[in-house]
Formats: sequence, structure tokens, C-alpha cells
Amino acid sequence: MTSLQETISRVRPVSVTVRSLATQRLNSLAMPRRALGRLLELAETLAAICGTADIDRTLDPCLKRRVNLVMAADHGVAVEGVSQYPQAVTRAMVETILSGRASINALATTANSSVVVVDMGVIGAKSWTARDGFLDRRIADGTDNMAVGPAMTRQQAVQSIEAGIEVAASVDADVVGLGEMGIANTTAATAIGCVLLGVDPMGATGSGTGLSSEAVKHKASVIRRAIEINGPDPNDGIDVLRTVGGFEIGGLVGAILGTAAFGKPIIIDGLISTSAVLIAHSLCPHVADWLIASHLSAEPLHQQMLNHLKIQAYLDLEMRLGEGTGAALMLPMLDAAAALLKEVATLEEVLK
Amino acid sequence: MTSLQETISRVRPVSVTVRSLATQRLNSLAMPRRALGRLLELAETLAAICGTADIDRTLDPCLKRRVNLVMAADHGVAVEGVSQYPQAVTRAMVETILSGRASINALATTANSSVVVVDMGVIGAKSWTARDGFLDRRIADGTDNMAVGPAMTRQQAVQSIEAGIEVAASVDADVVGLGEMGIANTTAATAIGCVLLGVDPMGATGSGTGLSSEAVKHKASVIRRAIEINGPDPNDGIDVLRTVGGFEIGGLVGAILGTAAFGKPIIIDGLISTSAVLIAHSLCPHVADWLIASHLSAEPLHQQMLNHLKIQAYLDLEMRLGEGTGAALMLPMLDAAAALLKEVATLEEVLK
Repeated sequence: MTSLQETISRVRPVSVTVRSLATQRLNSLAMPRRALGRLLELAETLAAICGTADIDRTLDPCLKRRVNLVMAADHGVAVEGVSQYPQAVTRAMVETILSGRASINALATTANSSVVVVDMGVIGAKSWTARDGFLDRRIADGTDNMAVGPAMTRQQAVQSIEAGIEVAASVDADVVGLGEMGIANTTAATAIGCVLLGVDPMGATGSGTGLSSEAVKHKASVIRRAIEINGPDPNDGIDVLRTVGGFEIGGLVGAILGTAAFGKPIIIDGLISTSAVLIAHSLCPHVADWLIASHLSAEPLHQQMLNHLKIQAYLDLEMRLGEGTGAALMLPMLDAAAALLKEVATLEEVLK
Repeated sequence: MTSLQETISRVRPVSVTVRSLATQRLNSLAMPRRALGRLLELAETLAAICGTADIDRTLDPCLKRRVNLVMAADHGVAVEGVSQYPQAVTRAMVETILSGRASINALATTANSSVVVVDMGVIGAKSWTARDGFLDRRIADGTDNMAVGPAMTRQQAVQSIEAGIEVAASVDADVVGLGEMGIANTTAATAIGCVLLGVDPMGATGSGTGLSSEAVKHKASVIRRAIEINGPDPNDGIDVLRTVGGFEIGGLVGAILGTAAFGKPIIIDGLISTSAVLIAHSLCPHVADWLIASHLSAEPLHQQMLNHLKIQAYLDLEMRLGEGTGAALMLPMLDAAAALLKEVATLEEVLK
């Protein structure tokens, strides 16, 4: 059995019993019924993920070691002019993140989280060496152009997922935030979403890093062409990744499966990480139980993707940066939800 | 000149120059234009409030000493059956907060903030003694029933506001979160909102701590009666407070004016604290510059109140607890916004 198959077999649904223990406790707290709204829902999700049949353990979700992953890779489809930024920006931004001065660093530090950058296939990245917070899991110097053929081989697709599984094991976190960097990767993510949701790229394609409406139309036509040429099989997540995906997206698929198999919470970021969730979910529907959706991206397809996964984002701040910034911004809300489980008195305790 | 008049005269608009310095910096960061959406807007607001002509100071808003105020008082209108909880719950919940086991304690602690409870007029609260995190600023044992006459005298209205001004001075915080506790205070807050916004209570009245739709209709009729009987002058904020307000709401009005006069950011919570903001704003329109709206309450009038103030909440989590829980939950997002100002490289720095 491969690492991928073995990992999928280890992903279980969360315990309905543990979740209802948490619900029971939260409904008995000294507040009007469900008066903290979705924060209580988050507390239940956390308790169900982190808890056990031991109620004390369930009411004290461990969120100590937190990691914000930034999986990075380049995309051959960038030659089609689908981004307003040159491809070299992938490498420049990875260097900025490694130097600690990108947005994801600021937000992760604020949330007491560590950033771990994973090179899944950044062009010209060979000079990076081993250091804290950096992992070299390069598959190749970027994908091939999906507008003229498959983005990668099936072997590379599986290899990228298995690299992500191994990353999840090596970071060994109590909670994992998903993030990415890769010029043109909203093109790949939109293509994945269109295939798996069965929607047409025209109307579903967004402005990414800030394209004009003319350029968005061009991007949509490139995505449509990539889907037509490659004919990805919507019932085979690995085929979707192979034809219109990216190495960092494959790495995220693996990190999702690996983290779910370890029984830890996974915080989704925006469009690209959600496209990885769609693939992971198509391979293993139980991953849904281990997910927390942080923010709703300004990209138009994102809400449809979350609807498909039957999951609702907590934040809606018109963000569209990526890097995992939404996932990092969500971490303090997990702390707040955990504190409700652990520290608030019940009505009975208050009245006695 | 009274303390109230003097405080109002000290509230200035924030500096347009300082704000534009911050905008300039944020627009030059290594990210696609405005890609962090409303988080950048929050960073600008913080910079404008905390900054000076010295750009280094502007890019490093001080948020060290944070206080979540919980102003508490009882309401005579509770006898009309407008809440599903007995009046004694005000006192019981204040005791829970003082013991550190209420929701506001859990959320404030998570955000490294201190809770300061202010007794503005809780019935039967005489046994409380001086301790850390508690201030006795009692006006009276609850307000009178606004459904049969004014809730308080004009002197008490001014006295409650001046007590709040003095509280703001004594806590001396870098950032203040507004919060409250008081059975029946959504009735007072809704009445204030209806008077100052010119809307009818029927349709604007919400379920508070969880009333049935029949009970909401009754509550709306009580509010309508209180407005008809007292005829509050919508052009005189103090008269609105006198006729249909509450002591904790007056205290919050003072805390808002005092904090704005000190030039520090004020985080609004839900319906009740926003009703205090409406009164403060009617007395002194410049307070608008010092406000940050945390969350949108599940109470129907809240969005209309925020629209009136031309301010938009950052969170929408179907919360309706009060105590200042939304304001506390917002604090980590201020840290995130401050970190963007301070720690993120500009595109120019990345590319050189």
C-alpha cells in the first residue's frame, strides 16, 4: 500500500459522541441559549477534533504547537499572461517569507504560530539551503503549461501529495494553517474548482492579484481551454491535479490528508488552499470533519467551493492575498473558542 | 465648564495627514494592491488614531494596556416583562464576571486584556467591596420604569456620563473595549436607537436574550409606550438618556467621550454599547473618528445603528451576548493590523 492509500485509510470521521459532549457543556454555560453564535459552533468543531471520551480532555483542546504552512511552486500556465505579476515574484516572495517580512510572518507571529515554507517547485530556487522553517520538497522547476497539455505527470501528482503527507508528519503540529505562494495559481485553483464543481470558468474566474475585467476574460478562456484540452476526470482527484493542478496544490492535498489522519484541525485559507481541500475531499470525504474555514475570499468561486464542502467561513474581510494569511488571522478565534470550553462557568454554577 | 463640556471640547478629529501616511505605507507593501482588504482599513484606522506626524510612531500603534469595560446596572422597565431573565441575573452575572468565570473573562484573557467591571447601579450590589478590576460608580438602585415615566433625572444622566469619563481617565488604557451587563438593557438600547434614528420599535425590536416572537411584540409595544409617554428630544442626547436610557449606558457614553478625548481607540461591542455610541455621537460628532466596530449583533437594529454612524463591523458571527464579548474577540485583529503596519516589507525592499 502506498503512503497515500495508507494515509487515506487512517482518516476517520470525528466522534459524534465527543461533539455532543461539547454541545451539552456549551448549552449549559452562563449565557442565553447559543448567545455566542458561530463562536460556539467553532468551539464544538474544535472539541470534536481535539477531544476524547474524557470530557476534561474534550473541554481543553490543545493548540500549543501551531504551524502555518506556505507551500510554494511555479506554474507553466504563467506564460499565457494570466497574472499581472512576472513569474520571478514567486521566488522573491518566498525569499521575503523566509526573511520573516511578508504578511504571513506578521500575522502568524501575532498568533504565536510558526511559518514553515515548503518549496514544492519554485523556479530558480536551488540556492536555498536547509534552515529552520524551510523544507525542500521540489518536484520540478514549475509545472508544464496546462493550456497546451497536462500540468504534470500522474507520478508527479502522487509524489506531490505524498510529499505533503510527509510534511504534515514532520511538522507534527497541534493545528495546521494552509497557505501557498505561486504566481498563476489562482488559474490552477479556479480550473480545479470548475472541474470538481462542474461550473464554467466564464463567470467563475476572478481577478487574482488584480486583473482588469478584460484580463479576467482572457484568464477564463485559458482555463476553459486547459479543461477542454486535458479532459480531466472529475471523479478522479489525482487526474484533476495532474491535468490542471500545481505542485504546491498537491503538497497541500497531502498536508490536509496527513493532518486529518493525525486527527488535528486544519484551517483553510482562500481559493487555492480550498481547491486542494476539494481534491483531498474527493479522495477522502472524511477530511471534511477536520476542516475549519477561516475567511471568504474575494474570489468569486470561493463561496461555491465552500458550499460544495458544506462549510462556512468565519471571516469575510475582502481578503485575497493568499500566503495563508486568512488561516493565520483565524488562529486567535480558535483560542477564544477553546477558552469558552475551558473557562466559562455553567448557569448552574452561577446560580448556586 | 462641567467635566462633560470640557471633555467634549477636547475630542478632536483624527489627523488626515497621519492617516494618509499610513495609507501610503500600506499601499507600498509587498502584496497585490489592497489584497488584505478590510484588514488594511483597520490598520489605517489604528494608525490614524495612535499615530503622530512621526512616521515611525504611526507605524507602531501602541496597544499594550487593553481594558474591556463592563458597565453594569439594572433597569426599572424589567417589571414590564421585557426579558426572559429575572432582574437578579444582573447581579449574579456581575459576580460571575468578578470571579473571572464569565464569557468576557475567557475572551479578554485570551486577548491579553483586563476586565474592569463598573457598578453603575446594580440592585442589591452593596456588599461588593473595592478590589482589582472593580469600580463602584453607583448612581442609584436601577433606573425607574421608562414605560411610565423618565428612566432617570437629567442630573443622574449627566452624573452617569461624568462617571464614565472619570472611569476612562482612571483605567488609562491604550485601547478600550466597551461592554455591559443589565437585564432589560436591550429594551433601553432599542428605545435609544429608535429615537435617534427615527424608526418605529415594531420591526426594530429584537429577541434580546431569546424572547419568543409574541414576547418581542410585547417588548416593542413597551418601547413604543416609553417613547410616547416621555417624548424624548432626538436633538438632545442627554434627554434621550434621561427618558429611555440606563445608568450603564450613560457610563458608556462617558467612557466613549473620555477615551476619544484621550485619543485612544474605542472598540464597540453590540446593540447596547452602540446605543451609547449614538448618544456620544449626538453630543460630539468627532467621536466617530475614534471608533472601531467589532461585530454585527444578531439584533435587527444594530446594522441600522452602524449605518447611521457610517461604520462597518468586522465580524458577523450571530453573536448577541453582550458583556463586551465582541469587543474582546476583536482585539487580536487589532494586533494583526498593527503587525502589518510595523513588520511587513515594501515591494521596493523585496525587489532590490
